[in-house]
Amino acid sequence: MAASMSVTETGEFGLIARITARLGVQPSTLLGPGDDAAIVSAPDGRVVASTDVLVEGRHFRRDWSSAVDIGHRAAAANLADIAAMGAVPTALLVAFCGPPDLDVRWAEELTDGLVAEADRAGAAIVGGDVSASSVLTVAVTALGDLQGREAVLRSGARAGDVVALAGRIGYAAAGYTVLSRGFRTPKMLVEAHRRPVVPYPAGPAAAKLGATSMIDVSDGLLADAGHVATASRVGIDIDRDAFPLPDQMRDTASALGVDPYTWILAGGDDHALLATFPEGAQLPEPFRIIGTVTGGAGVTVNGKSYGDGQVGWDHFR
Amino acid sequence: MAASMSVTETGEFGLIARITARLGVQPSTLLGPGDDAAIVSAPDGRVVASTDVLVEGRHFRRDWSSAVDIGHRAAAANLADIAAMGAVPTALLVAFCGPPDLDVRWAEELTDGLVAEADRAGAAIVGGDVSASSVLTVAVTALGDLQGREAVLRSGARAGDVVALAGRIGYAAAGYTVLSRGFRTPKMLVEAHRRPVVPYPAGPAAAKLGATSMIDVSDGLLADAGHVATASRVGIDIDRDAFPLPDQMRDTASALGVDPYTWILAGGDDHALLATFPEGAQLPEPFRIIGTVTGGAGVTVNGKSYGDGQVGWDHFR
Repeated sequence: MAASMSVTETGEFGLIARITARLGVQPSTLLGPGDDAAIVSAPDGRVVASTDVLVEGRHFRRDWSSAVDIGHRAAAANLADIAAMGAVPTALLVAFCGPPDLDVRWAEELTDGLVAEADRAGAAIVGGDVSASSVLTVAVTALGDLQGREAVLRSGARAGDVVALAGRIGYAAAGYTVLSRGFRTPKMLVEAHRRPVVPYPAGPAAAKLGATSMIDVSDGLLADAGHVATASRVGIDIDRDAFPLPDQMRDTASALGVDPYTWILAGGDDHALLATFPEGAQLPEPFRIIGTVTGGAGVTVNGKSYGDGQVGWDHFR
Repeated sequence: MAASMSVTETGEFGLIARITARLGVQPSTLLGPGDDAAIVSAPDGRVVASTDVLVEGRHFRRDWSSAVDIGHRAAAANLADIAAMGAVPTALLVAFCGPPDLDVRWAEELTDGLVAEADRAGAAIVGGDVSASSVLTVAVTALGDLQGREAVLRSGARAGDVVALAGRIGYAAAGYTVLSRGFRTPKMLVEAHRRPVVPYPAGPAAAKLGATSMIDVSDGLLADAGHVATASRVGIDIDRDAFPLPDQMRDTASALGVDPYTWILAGGDDHALLATFPEGAQLPEPFRIIGTVTGGAGVTVNGKSYGDGQVGWDHFR
C-alpha cells in the first residue's frame, strides 16, 4: 500500500507529472500536455469554448462526494455546455488549486474522474495548471467541434415551437437536499448529485434535426428556460404533467416534507439539455416534449407563474 | 461618484452583466459571451490552448498591484504561452472567484486589465465564469492560431543552435524583491512585476524564421532553459555577459544586498520568450543571442553549473 503523500511533498512539477501520467488522448489531440500549450484539431475552422469553475463549499463538499465524483461533475458541467451548442466535445483544460497538505491521491482521483467523464463525451484532457490555495478550486475549460453545423443558440426559439428536454431533471437537487439533511440514501438521488448523467450525443443530434434553440440546464429548469425566453423574446410554458415523479423521488420528498416539483422546476446540476424544435419535428432520443413556446414573455407552468420568480441559483448569494 | 457595491449586492448575473459590458471583440470572435459557449475562429483547422491560474497571496497581492495590473498579468501569463508556440492569440476565457464582499469596481478593473492586455496581443475575452470564494482566484485559458505553421515545441533544439531571448528578464523578480522589502521604487522594477511587457509578435516571427524550439520564461531563465534542454535532450550554456545590468537594477541590487544575476537567471514572471535558432539564422526583433545549445545535458552558465540547481519557482513550496 502506498503511503500517503501531500502535494507539497511532490511539489508542483511532481504533481503535474503524476496527473499527466493518468491522461489519455483522443483523435482530436494533436499535442497533449508538456509544452507551453496544447494543440487540438478544429476541423471546420471554428472552436467552441466554455469555462466553468467549481469551488469547495460552494459547488461541492469533500465529505459528500469523492474526488472521482467531483472530477466527473467538473468535467460534465463544461462538456454539457459544449453539447448544448450542438457541438461534439474535443478537449478539456483544467486549472486545479488545492491546499498544500492535500493528499496527492485526491488530486490523482480527481484526474481519474475528469478523464472518465471526458472520455464519455469523446474528449481528452490536453492541458492545465496547478497551484496551491487554501480553497480547493477546479476551473475547467472545454473545447468542441461543430462539425460544420451552425451552432444552436439560446436566441432561436419561435412561438409555436415545442420545448423538449433530454436527460434527468430534479435528481441532483433531490440528492443535494438528502445530503444536506444528513442522509446518504436513496442512493439513486445522492449519486445523481455526485455524478450528473449528461446525454452528450443528444446535443449534436438536436442540432442535426433542426433544434431552434438549446441550453444546458445548470441554474434550474425554469431559470434556464427563462434565459431562452429572454434571448429569443418569446414566452415558454412548461407542462408540469410532463414530469411523472419517480417513486423514490416522491417518497423522499414526502419523507423530507419537500415539494418534489421544486427539485424538478428549480433545481440545477443535472445538466439536462433543454431545446426547442419546430412543431412536428422528429425529436432525437432521449428528448421528450415538456412544453411549448408562446408569443408571450417569461416562463409559466401550465399557464401560471411559478413561486416567487426566484427560481435560480446565484453563487454569490 | 458611484457608491461602492459588493459582488453579493450585484449577484452572479449582475456581476456577469457588468463584466461583459466591458468586453470587446476581435475578428476571430465568432460568438462572444452570453450563450452556453463561445465560438472562435481556428482558420487552419487547429487551435492552440493553454491555461494558467493566479491565486491571491501566491501569485499576486492586492496591496502590491492594482486590479488592472493583475488583469494584465493574468492575461499576459497565458498569452505568452500561445506566442511561445509560434501562434497568434485569438481569445481568452476567464474563471473568476472572489470573496462576496469584494467591491464590484475591483472585478470591473480586473476585467479592464484583462481586456487591455488581450487587446495588445490581438485577442478578445469570449467567455468565462464567476463564483464566490474566500480566495481571489483568476484562471485564464488562452486560445491561439498557428496560421498554418508548425508549432515550435520545446523539444526541437539541436546542438550547435544559438539560444536567443526576446523581452526583459529579471525585471519582474527585481520588482518582487523591492516590494517584498517594503519599498515602492524604483518604479521601473515595481511596474515590471505588476505588468510584464511581453513581445507577443516575436513568437510567430520566430516560428517564421525557423526557430527550432521556444518556451515562455515563467519559472526562471535557467529553469525554463532546463525544460528545453530536457525535452530536446541537449545541453544549454548561457552566457552571463549577454546580460548587461541596467543601472537601476545594479543600484537596487547593491542597495538591497542581492546578486542581480539571481533575478536574471532564476527569476520568473517577465514572460520573455526563449528560443533556439540554427547558427547563422536571421533573428527576428527583439531576439538577442544569450547562449548556445551543446551536445551535453542540463543548463550551465559560462560552462559551469549555477547555484544549487534549485533555480525555479514551485507554487506548492
